[in-house]
Amino acid sequence: MGLVVHKFGGSSVADTDLIKTAAKRAIETKKGGDNVIVVVSAMGNETDRLYELASQIMKNPPSREVDMLVSTGEQVSIALMSMAIQSFGQDSISFLGGQIGVRTDGYHEKAKIIGIEKEKVEAALAEGKIVVVAGFQGTDKQMNITTLGRGGSDTSAVALAAVFGADVCVINKDVDGVYTADPRIVPDASLLKTISYDEMLELAGMGAGVLHSRAVELAKKHSVPLRVRSSFNEKPGTLVCVEDPNKEQPMARGATFNKKEARVTISGVPDKPGMAATILKHIAERNINVDMIIQNPGHSGLADLTFTVPKSDLHETLGVCREVSGQIGAKDVTSSENIAKLSVIGSGMRAYPGVASRMFTALAKENVNIQNISTSEIKISCIVAEEDCDRSLRAVHHAFELDKVE
Amino acid sequence: MGLVVHKFGGSSVADTDLIKTAAKRAIETKKGGDNVIVVVSAMGNETDRLYELASQIMKNPPSREVDMLVSTGEQVSIALMSMAIQSFGQDSISFLGGQIGVRTDGYHEKAKIIGIEKEKVEAALAEGKIVVVAGFQGTDKQMNITTLGRGGSDTSAVALAAVFGADVCVINKDVDGVYTADPRIVPDASLLKTISYDEMLELAGMGAGVLHSRAVELAKKHSVPLRVRSSFNEKPGTLVCVEDPNKEQPMARGATFNKKEARVTISGVPDKPGMAATILKHIAERNINVDMIIQNPGHSGLADLTFTVPKSDLHETLGVCREVSGQIGAKDVTSSENIAKLSVIGSGMRAYPGVASRMFTALAKENVNIQNISTSEIKISCIVAEEDCDRSLRAVHHAFELDKVE
Repeated sequence: MGLVVHKFGGSSVADTDLIKTAAKRAIETKKGGDNVIVVVSAMGNETDRLYELASQIMKNPPSREVDMLVSTGEQVSIALMSMAIQSFGQDSISFLGGQIGVRTDGYHEKAKIIGIEKEKVEAALAEGKIVVVAGFQGTDKQMNITTLGRGGSDTSAVALAAVFGADVCVINKDVDGVYTADPRIVPDASLLKTISYDEMLELAGMGAGVLHSRAVELAKKHSVPLRVRSSFNEKPGTLVCVEDPNKEQPMARGATFNKKEARVTISGVPDKPGMAATILKHIAERNINVDMIIQNPGHSGLADLTFTVPKSDLHETLGVCREVSGQIGAKDVTSSENIAKLSVIGSGMRAYPGVASRMFTALAKENVNIQNISTSEIKISCIVAEEDCDRSLRAVHHAFELDKVE
Repeated sequence: MGLVVHKFGGSSVADTDLIKTAAKRAIETKKGGDNVIVVVSAMGNETDRLYELASQIMKNPPSREVDMLVSTGEQVSIALMSMAIQSFGQDSISFLGGQIGVRTDGYHEKAKIIGIEKEKVEAALAEGKIVVVAGFQGTDKQMNITTLGRGGSDTSAVALAAVFGADVCVINKDVDGVYTADPRIVPDASLLKTISYDEMLELAGMGAGVLHSRAVELAKKHSVPLRVRSSFNEKPGTLVCVEDPNKEQPMARGATFNKKEARVTISGVPDKPGMAATILKHIAERNINVDMIIQNPGHSGLADLTFTVPKSDLHETLGVCREVSGQIGAKDVTSSENIAKLSVIGSGMRAYPGVASRMFTALAKENVNIQNISTSEIKISCIVAEEDCDRSLRAVHHAFELDKVE
């Protein structure tokens, strides 16, 4: 007898009819001979409703009380889910994070799971029950309720799958699986049958929105296969798993973009060791994530340093940069919000020469100006003007024949 | 330094503005020099909304899951209340029942409090915090969430007041206090300055709705003074406390009615020992509450047995009665739902003769037919036709000069 973890997101449990549909899927798995743990998010927009109530009380409410508040969303869902399962004659029991010892650190609103106790869940499974667990939450050492941050229910599901040695963690969502690109922008995007953890991480990191990076990282660490599929149909979806080393990989498996970053350039930086480090250290101290760092050696011993930061952090970043550039004698600080980061991702890149040139050729044909470039082992990214983003994505998707990838 | 428990009911925390108003009242008490524990109910109709969700899933949902579900209502309230208190610069912390060891028995949806641990609350009070506790809930030995049944937040507040030796438990409501009769029916009803536990119990037992019987019983047992007052004004309200034996009591302190009962008569019951006991035993086995039992010895060795039961239990009661009356050879079973039980309550009754005759005279003057009568030490009740109820109440209220009682 195996074990399957079924995770249902907010839109999959948005009303009581959908909860019943989800319950039927869990029961089907159980009848197929596997034990089942169900992890649920809050119903529909319930979490937003709760945050809104808090914001009516005060700006920046104390985070311990925020966690006390928003964790009720999942609690409502597990109770209704367990009722729904029992209404179909299948025994079930619901548990809060704290009740099954989902122990976290004490960082409210962004806690990390430290451990999960096994006794209660194993006992309930042994009694033939479907165990329903509240995602997104745990308790710290003092039994304060903590939450894992937005998207934390995926992380909860993967953590449970890892601890109890599940054969698969099924992420039931409102999409059919992982596509080679956003189908709203690229109509001939294909649904992937499989994708590797690393490829999925690059996609998630780019904000592709299907899975949270933390959940994928955890799945990779513990080799938990993830199946991303739709709650609303019977299609198999996409399996996120270890790459099969014996299978030939396509050059690329996905194309995506990120419009949420801004670009900062510090020009005329004295070209001597430690300058870039000094600048970036000051930014890191503000907890701002820096990406796509490019340094161009300029003339007369001066260099230009370019990087991207989230648009929401641009104002603060510019303040830091102006201060530091004064101290180190740099010439100027400029920025642009009118950018998009376009990326092509694929483990197969390692084996193919000419990946970059294929991308540049595709963009050149579309008369798109490439502003910056960065590459990793399995990803190549270009910065383009924001208004060029969508047609660039379609061009790149076509150039890498992603419509033919499975 | 004393201790005050402030309990705020659902209509006193129905939205975030009201929560802020309630928070200010708690802070005022704290600034007056007392420690403060706040107990809150769920916001407005939130509990009804949650029960409705459950009923969309199934009829008679499993009660463990019902408790998991409905206990979230109070959890939302405590988080928002603690935020509101902190937003005004006063330190505060919220606790679930389980977090401060409100231990109950395992009877879901109607649990009884067994004990409350003192450490966490005392530590928080010692740190100068206002402690906000979720009413209505606790956990059993296995850490399952339990609820105390409707109105249970009053009971939670009184239990906390008892355990921590509070000077007073303030029940903040949407009414000004306890009246001599329902002011919607008796316009000249007076607001009582004080009422004894026993009088309040008789009123609560009659469904007067201001306080739950269990809460009053617990307050009486531990001599916790209760102050019932409005959240929406500064009036002092009504103090529910031990009767002052040195003070002369008025004959009556309240008049009330109950339209939720039906009357059952079994006629031609063989007039021999044990007949009434047999019938009532069978009804009790169905957990049906029987009240106002009257046996009239009839002629030829046959008696009539009359009693009242809640209207919601009438159908089941009649089934039992018909079965049993066949077995014991009774003649007939009849019932009436068109009744109301009218009661006058007052500890002073003990000292006054002529209480019953005053009531009967008042009703006779109104041409109201009295169908049944029962009396206790501090209460006299008559059954009248439902349509006569309101004017009977006004007549009785006038006859006992309740408009002049304080």
